[in-house]
Amino acid sequence: MQYPAPLLKLMQMLRKLPGVGAKSAERYAFEMFDWKEGDLKELAVLVGSLKEQLQECFVCGCLISGKSCSFCLEPSRDKEILCVIATPRDVFAMEQTREYRGLYHVLGGVLSPLEGKGPGQLRVEPLKARIIQNGVKEVVIALDSTLEGDATSLYLKRELISLGVGISRLAFGLPMGSSLEYVDGGTLARALSGRSRF
Amino acid sequence: MQYPAPLLKLMQMLRKLPGVGAKSAERYAFEMFDWKEGDLKELAVLVGSLKEQLQECFVCGCLISGKSCSFCLEPSRDKEILCVIATPRDVFAMEQTREYRGLYHVLGGVLSPLEGKGPGQLRVEPLKARIIQNGVKEVVIALDSTLEGDATSLYLKRELISLGVGISRLAFGLPMGSSLEYVDGGTLARALSGRSRF
Repeated sequence: MQYPAPLLKLMQMLRKLPGVGAKSAERYAFEMFDWKEGDLKELAVLVGSLKEQLQECFVCGCLISGKSCSFCLEPSRDKEILCVIATPRDVFAMEQTREYRGLYHVLGGVLSPLEGKGPGQLRVEPLKARIIQNGVKEVVIALDSTLEGDATSLYLKRELISLGVGISRLAFGLPMGSSLEYVDGGTLARALSGRSRF
Repeated sequence: MQYPAPLLKLMQMLRKLPGVGAKSAERYAFEMFDWKEGDLKELAVLVGSLKEQLQECFVCGCLISGKSCSFCLEPSRDKEILCVIATPRDVFAMEQTREYRGLYHVLGGVLSPLEGKGPGQLRVEPLKARIIQNGVKEVVIALDSTLEGDATSLYLKRELISLGVGISRLAFGLPMGSSLEYVDGGTLARALSGRSRF
């Protein structure tokens, strides 16, 4: 005995979401069947129109709904600082810090030869053009602290250094609230080499 | 800075799924934005038409897609055994055992005074009618081994005993592959009292 076809198909679609396996997909699908008809229709409209409703800003690459980018056109933002991030999602992580007031540049991923992602797939040339055209003073590299993130950061540094722009990268060290005994060796080593006067 | 409105709305809808918090909803929403347009449209249609595509069989309460119930009308199934389950979802858990070949009866939940679920909200009368009309020999109660499941099982037993039908309930004991030191006291006590000759 199999699940009814529409339910099975829904589970298969939901399994494409990150971290969702067979059990979660089953729970989600049965839960959805218990939702009110109106909620299901609303979700259907949202999902079906997602690509029309959301676009990437053609300057910075951030997600926008509507015609103008709320980052690029915000007058209070410092246009001389650019934060380089891998995906549009990272923008919201940065914004939640409430500490950054410059503009963004979405790179579109990190260098990953295994996934066939080379320099040609990243938005490096538009980044250079923005730096030159807008007289950018500092580029803050905010990429993951992974092997790929490190390689991409080094690559960016080499590409941008000749433009005479300041280049910085997010600090590495202990995460907040961490206890030394649970911190891995690599993190501790970087926290040590990056120690500052106290 | 907030998420664009359609993305925020999608996250709010996804958070209604069981076990999905703010972080997961954000991951799902951004992942969906990266899906192909065709996949999004397909999911939208599935979600929007879920209630039309799936119905509950008016005899047993199982989910069906189409007019006829694949359980009630399956000739190889033993019509003299009824398995009582709380929700249509439990049918698929029972089916996966490949050990049960009788029919089902979905109760529509368990007794739960806190959630306002009394005997009147459960499909007990239709169960009695089926037992009498179809000459059912055995009722297998397959409800959760929780307080509510226990109470509902006892209630069912009291309601059905006068019909002269055999009543059994799923066994309680050690789950497969469990190590005694991690098994809770309640489970161990029930496994002990239910011990069988070896």
